[in-house]
This record gives sequence, C-alpha cells and structure tokens, in this order.
Amino acid sequence: MLKLFYSPGACSLAPHIALEEAGASYECVRTNTAEGEQRRPEYLAINPKGRIPALVTERGVLTETPAILAFVAQSFPEARLAPLDDPFAFAEAQAFNSYLCSTVHVAHAHRHRGYRWADDPAALAEMTRKVPETIGACFQLIEDTMLRGPWVMGEAYTVCDGYLFTLADWLEGDGVDPRRFPMVFEHRERVRARPAVSRALATESGA
Amino acid sequence: MLKLFYSPGACSLAPHIALEEAGASYECVRTNTAEGEQRRPEYLAINPKGRIPALVTERGVLTETPAILAFVAQSFPEARLAPLDDPFAFAEAQAFNSYLCSTVHVAHAHRHRGYRWADDPAALAEMTRKVPETIGACFQLIEDTMLRGPWVMGEAYTVCDGYLFTLADWLEGDGVDPRRFPMVFEHRERVRARPAVSRALATESGA
Repeated sequence: MLKLFYSPGACSLAPHIALEEAGASYECVRTNTAEGEQRRPEYLAINPKGRIPALVTERGVLTETPAILAFVAQSFPEARLAPLDDPFAFAEAQAFNSYLCSTVHVAHAHRHRGYRWADDPAALAEMTRKVPETIGACFQLIEDTMLRGPWVMGEAYTVCDGYLFTLADWLEGDGVDPRRFPMVFEHRERVRARPAVSRALATESGA
Repeated sequence: MLKLFYSPGACSLAPHIALEEAGASYECVRTNTAEGEQRRPEYLAINPKGRIPALVTERGVLTETPAILAFVAQSFPEARLAPLDDPFAFAEAQAFNSYLCSTVHVAHAHRHRGYRWADDPAALAEMTRKVPETIGACFQLIEDTMLRGPWVMGEAYTVCDGYLFTLADWLEGDGVDPRRFPMVFEHRERVRARPAVSRALATESGA
C-alpha cells in the first residue's frame, strides 16, 4: 500500500489531497518538521534529503512534490487529475507545479529556513523581512498570468489545484493579505470546500 | 516550429540538449541574461516571469526546465529520453529534475542572484559566501544517493543527464572542485562527449 510521509500543513498536503481525490488506498505517517523529525535517522533512511514529503510505493520511494503529484495522476487515470493524453497540456500543469516548487515555496522558505543559504543572523533576519514582498510578487503573477479559473488549468480540476491551495494557505503567515488576489482567494475557498480536501485537512489536524 | 529562448550556459542548456538528442526541428533565440535581456518587454510578453528558458510551441509557451524536458521526451517518444510508459520510473526522473530545479539551481542562484530574497548588501555577501558549502552538499547527495551510472537513471540516457551536466558544469564557478564527486565528474565528461551535446554547446558559444 502507498505510504505518505507528511508534516501537518507542509507542502505534503498537496500529495495528500491528490491521494484523497484519486480515491487511493494509502497510509499517512506524520513526520513533524516543527520537531525536526525529518532529520531523524529512520526518516533519512527513507529520504536522504531529509525533506517532506516522501511517498513509499511497492517499487520504491518517490520524493519531490511535483513528481509525486504527476505519479498520483498517472497511477489513477480514472480520477482525471491531470491532462494525461496531451503532452502540451500536461507540460502546462507540470510548469505550474514547478513554479510553485522552485519559486513560490523557495520564497516562502526564506522566512524561517534561511539557514539553508546563510549563517549570519543578520542575513537571516533580512531574508525574513523581504518575504512579504517576494511572496506578494509571486501571487500577483499567479493572479495575473497563471490561474485560469475556476481551476488552475481552466475547466478541469487537477493536482495543480490542491498544490496552489496548500501554498496559498500560507499567505497570512507570510504577512500577505490574500484578498489582494481575488482569483487566488476565491480559488482557495473553492478548493477548501471539496470533500477530499476536508478529509486530508481533518487527518492532518488530528481531528 | 519549436522555438527555444536560451541564455548561453544557463539552465536552458538542458532543454537545448534534449531538443538536439530528440532530433527536433527547432529554432534557438539567444536572450542573454548577463545583459538582462530576459526583462525586456518583448521577452516578458513571451514569459511574464522574466526567466529563461521558454519554449514556444504551436499551442503556446512552455516554461520551467523540468516541464519542458518532460514535454520534449513525450513529444519525441522514439528518442526514448524518459521512461514514458512506466509512471513510477517517470516519476523518479521527474523527482531528479525537480531536485535540480528547486534545490541545486536555487542554491547556485544565491551566489549572484541573492537580490531575489534580500536587499541588504551584507546579506547578499553572506549568501554568496555560503554557496560552496550548499552546492557541495547538494552534489554529495547526488553522488551518494541519486546518480546510478552510467547515466542518472541507470542504463538508459534520459533528459536528466543533460540537466545534471548543465548544473555540474557550474561547479568550478561556484567554488567547488568537481573531482570531489568522481561519479558526477565522470558523468559530466560522458555527457559532454555526446554529439548532441557538442552541437548545443557550439550553438551557445556562437561557434
């Protein structure tokens, strides 16, 4: 059975939502990054990167949110979570997820995880200070040029939607008012209202 | 016809190599990031992110290196540039590319592009200082846990190889001796020796 290692509210929520949307049989294993559990030897044996998420499959371990999302979409084609038969449309979805991973999530990580790229406390404080500006610019670009509506890719819900929801739910914590981006804001509530998303959120909150 | 916007030696070299390996008909458009050409209005009309690469297709524009690489592999299946019929193996390749994009390239960008995440000159200098350490750690992980040999995914050459080659060729510039990583070093020369790679490099150097 598939096994997802997640941390509550982390980017692992995106594959968690995707697995729920797919109707997959899977198990969830809480690995709380707030307590550094992703750096424990037993987790490093699963994912040597020491990062969340990891998806354990019968064939081996998969890491990296965009890769796991594409895997879930391809493994459960009947759930129609990505445009699987159209390389261009599939690449558009991949590009969206790659932007979230390599630009938006990275900008967010400079708030509390600047130690990845600097040691000096003053530099870390300076990175934290700039986060509202960088995250605001990212979401302005999403609002203006990427989010088609009602879903990210247009008429069809895809794995991109749960991923955008996950990162958009960090906006307030990053010091950015989500109401600056009406399409993103409405999209976030549209995703939150889905039963699969409610189930994933309930599991992660321990409800 | 496909049209690739690239900057010499930038990460756009990875899709450039993939297009050569695929035997694609395409056109190359130099957009020199060293001169800020990616922020000119005519380029922003193509890619509002102001980043390289962009691939213009008959259907529209694709961005983000991992997405473009998967698109090239799927569009030219006879070139066998990715394990297209195996969702797990495809996800492994995607995970590798996602790591290069969101962790290795991001670590590298802190050398000269720290202004994305901070304004204070002292913070930028501190980010630059740490790059040899962070890039060294990334490539140690690639050496120890990811690169299977002779190619990234094992016996078959994939789009991952041209991408790893591209980023590994930045090691000296990032202050890291590539000989610390014998598998990466040998892989780099193995990729460089491929005719498709020679052609892409010749075009980018203006030869």
